[in-house]
Amino acid sequence: MKRLAVLLSGRGSNFEAIADRIKEGKLLARIEVVVSNVDAAPALEKARQRGLNTVVLNSQELGKEKFEQTLEKTLKDSKVDLICLAGFMKILSPSFIHKFPNQILNIHPSILPAFPGLDSQKQALDKGVKFSGCTVHFVNEGIDTGPIVLQAVVPVFESDDEQSLSNRILAEEHQLYVKAIDLVLRDKIRIKNGRVVRSSSQK
Amino acid sequence: MKRLAVLLSGRGSNFEAIADRIKEGKLLARIEVVVSNVDAAPALEKARQRGLNTVVLNSQELGKEKFEQTLEKTLKDSKVDLICLAGFMKILSPSFIHKFPNQILNIHPSILPAFPGLDSQKQALDKGVKFSGCTVHFVNEGIDTGPIVLQAVVPVFESDDEQSLSNRILAEEHQLYVKAIDLVLRDKIRIKNGRVVRSSSQK
Repeated sequence: MKRLAVLLSGRGSNFEAIADRIKEGKLLARIEVVVSNVDAAPALEKARQRGLNTVVLNSQELGKEKFEQTLEKTLKDSKVDLICLAGFMKILSPSFIHKFPNQILNIHPSILPAFPGLDSQKQALDKGVKFSGCTVHFVNEGIDTGPIVLQAVVPVFESDDEQSLSNRILAEEHQLYVKAIDLVLRDKIRIKNGRVVRSSSQK
Repeated sequence: MKRLAVLLSGRGSNFEAIADRIKEGKLLARIEVVVSNVDAAPALEKARQRGLNTVVLNSQELGKEKFEQTLEKTLKDSKVDLICLAGFMKILSPSFIHKFPNQILNIHPSILPAFPGLDSQKQALDKGVKFSGCTVHFVNEGIDTGPIVLQAVVPVFESDDEQSLSNRILAEEHQLYVKAIDLVLRDKIRIKNGRVVRSSSQK
């Protein structure tokens, strides 16, 4: 059984979607550890109720270096195959990322490369785009610039506010992230020239 | 009947789509003048065969200032309501654009703000996005940054090359541009805070 770590900072709705699909037997994996860099992340209680192993590493108190050292140890001790960022609001350093090559996934609420960084839904509304969506990508050294695994598109309506657009995108995120994790865990994709391609050899 | 100018530099497939919809009575407008900044643009012959008024202003020979002066005179003499860029490969200066406020439309082969500028389809393939598309926008001082009127989305397949992706997008462009021109000509939209919104008052 492949072993996942989920890193989060808040309510963890994508974490719940992943945990639900695992429980239903639709995603063959085990969440080995849930790590929050925020003490009061509401997702922590949800994880505990599910009987999952939770770790809190307060990134503000620890400082970047100590935080990443402890996080690295936690992840290596848990022998995780894949690290899923799910509303994880801390930027990981390049040196940390290099320690887990092609092992860190993130989900972002826009059709990247449009609207990277924070407040993507607001950025989209301010720009007046007619479509937005979400992207699952491998994490590289840039902000939301890594190889794209999957994307989904939603319409943007003139009546939308940040909340309504965020909700519409989030519903897609919950589907998309599980699909992407499944592709990675089953070795269905690989990275070639900085892009994700389907594996030609079946494993 | 509203009067259009179409500005182009090449084969003019969007020009033909517009002219066809007008001929079919599906777009209530008249193409008053077709302007090419390139002597040998294949679209010129197509325009002449349709009995349309064509003007060639060789932008390279004339130089930017003289080119824009002559273009301005041509458009004002033709009393056009709307100027449609259709594969027009010359960047218009801010001073020129200010002379035709909210009167210049462009179509671009990406879901802007992703992949502005040249070779959008190649940019999309290089980035490995799973969706691309096209955007009709008003022209402002930036490169493909103006208020967005309409967008359309197409999937990007792993087997795509520039040609196959361009063709898929182009088929959408031909539909989208006519819809956007129709909205503008019927005063169905207006620009508010740099974004396109539906007109609340019906005219």
